[in-house]
Amino acid sequence: MTSKIIGVGNYIPSEIITNIFFDQHNFLDNNGDALKHDNATIALKLKEITGIEERRYASKNQVTSDLGLIAAEAAIKNSGIDPETLDYIIFAHNFGDVAFGTIQSDTVPSLASRVKHKLKIKNNYCVAYDVLFGCPGWIEGVIQANAYIKSGLAKRCLIIGAETLSRVVDPHDRDTMIYADGAGAVIIEHTEEEKGIKSHLSASFTYEEKDYLFFGKSYNNTKCPDTKYIKMDGRKIYEFALNNVAAAMKECLAKSGYDITSLNKIIIHQANEKMDEAIVKRFYRQYSMPVPEGIMPMVISKLGNSSVATVPTLLAMIMNNELEDHQINDGDLVMFASVGAGMNINAIVYQF
Amino acid sequence: MTSKIIGVGNYIPSEIITNIFFDQHNFLDNNGDALKHDNATIALKLKEITGIEERRYASKNQVTSDLGLIAAEAAIKNSGIDPETLDYIIFAHNFGDVAFGTIQSDTVPSLASRVKHKLKIKNNYCVAYDVLFGCPGWIEGVIQANAYIKSGLAKRCLIIGAETLSRVVDPHDRDTMIYADGAGAVIIEHTEEEKGIKSHLSASFTYEEKDYLFFGKSYNNTKCPDTKYIKMDGRKIYEFALNNVAAAMKECLAKSGYDITSLNKIIIHQANEKMDEAIVKRFYRQYSMPVPEGIMPMVISKLGNSSVATVPTLLAMIMNNELEDHQINDGDLVMFASVGAGMNINAIVYQF
Repeated sequence: MTSKIIGVGNYIPSEIITNIFFDQHNFLDNNGDALKHDNATIALKLKEITGIEERRYASKNQVTSDLGLIAAEAAIKNSGIDPETLDYIIFAHNFGDVAFGTIQSDTVPSLASRVKHKLKIKNNYCVAYDVLFGCPGWIEGVIQANAYIKSGLAKRCLIIGAETLSRVVDPHDRDTMIYADGAGAVIIEHTEEEKGIKSHLSASFTYEEKDYLFFGKSYNNTKCPDTKYIKMDGRKIYEFALNNVAAAMKECLAKSGYDITSLNKIIIHQANEKMDEAIVKRFYRQYSMPVPEGIMPMVISKLGNSSVATVPTLLAMIMNNELEDHQINDGDLVMFASVGAGMNINAIVYQF
Repeated sequence: MTSKIIGVGNYIPSEIITNIFFDQHNFLDNNGDALKHDNATIALKLKEITGIEERRYASKNQVTSDLGLIAAEAAIKNSGIDPETLDYIIFAHNFGDVAFGTIQSDTVPSLASRVKHKLKIKNNYCVAYDVLFGCPGWIEGVIQANAYIKSGLAKRCLIIGAETLSRVVDPHDRDTMIYADGAGAVIIEHTEEEKGIKSHLSASFTYEEKDYLFFGKSYNNTKCPDTKYIKMDGRKIYEFALNNVAAAMKECLAKSGYDITSLNKIIIHQANEKMDEAIVKRFYRQYSMPVPEGIMPMVISKLGNSSVATVPTLLAMIMNNELEDHQINDGDLVMFASVGAGMNINAIVYQF
């Protein structure tokens, strides 16, 4: 017994934010000093490292739960199910609903409750809750749903990942150009077939790594120190991810019982293209293999890093045949993997 | 196979807030008009309805995760386990860490990650995440942990409920006097014994009820409308709880297979003493029975409503023999129940 995906959906916000958006930003280093390069050069270097050319932002009148709702509606439509048959709605995010121009996170009621309300679901036994697990929150939601299915608690679950990082960015931090908004969702259900989730793995590295991603003050020292923004130690995260994500992926594949040569696709959290490429290279190096061509679809150049949303957004794009060079066929073995605030890492090996 | 509690702990903040604290508050109604009665009378009426005489607040230098850590340390000590053997740390809250005098919720990294870090746990496979499910979040965390244990994903889990409602209260809203700060925690583990969790039930009422508890603007119309506070529609919640919590408790007991006469104790979310009494009365009325004397321990008069923390706080007080009139003995059947933002309801029938 395991769980299989029966519907996918995403919502890619319509506001395209090119690098011109940041042209007049006064970027500073973490001491508050001006960066040496001009903004055009900074954007170019950022693109070289992260692959990001542009990103999407939610409209001013939208909040995270609105994005999640649209992705959820798409997944429900794609699956063809009656939403009243859902046993769980699990909403992964990290900052709640932050209205444009404000700084407070609104998480009461939970974002899952808001989505359930807007889906007009009357079934009170459809349990709606939010999970906070950094960028790997959406994959973790799928792992949790799978546990409910395996333990007999649920038959069918909707798992949403949505975030509006644009609402928590420091305009004086060049990392701001990395962050994006988005939403993705899947519906999974109980299956007695061989296909579906074959293995999974989760880990939380907190002993030394807790603050590699955190909520901190602006690089502009004249700003109110009480107002916090998403902050990261990019160098430490890069080293951490290289050392630990590839190893976690290997362990997850070993748990699945499949051989490395059986793997058809890796859908990894789109945090940084160079980092993702280095992780996958390291992953294959563990098997003394070069990285197979076309193993890792990437859409970060146009969508940026939308936290919990990157993995389900990309999955829905592939399943809906929106990527020219990437398909998932019946029987394909796919690995999902993510890393982010916590610091958390997780992975799933899934057979379609 | 089920899960049993092997350790309990709580943290009751040392700052006692009597009604004198609110003496100079300018209480308004939701139209912004002054209340008819003076504050002493308001406090007296509040006590009549909710039973609350005083409440506890965290110290100015503490945040929610600090409270949760102390409760977690107490539960670990009480259980005698090595914290490295924990498979999960689940932290239930609703507003994250809100520093004194600020309005932002800090949830990155998750509060569970913060606690795991401070517990100095090196085991990366101890998965740390936060769950948002209104006041029933702590009970829901226990239900989730039980599912992980039943599905073979975990053997031993720490579940923390902590909240600092004092950081999100509108000083112009008399409901402010209800809210409190606190933390409780338990450790549960896999067992093949007959004792432990016998049944559980969860429900999310969102179709009409989503905004009975919400994050809204101050009753003082001159305050910035962008700053939000915990708000509730007390009358609607009272009716909702009476109609639905008693029914959910009955259903949960039926699922356990035990007779109503076997029940030794009801540990219910301490939201409002009169409401809790009415719920329990309605619960027993379903069996045409009067409420047995001493079935429902209450500590709300001294501790107020600390959201997710009330149930584990009270459980730890009883298990540690801190309540004169209430004990839980070997073999006793106890029901845990809660209701809150979402609107969510849940219950567990547990044999000690």
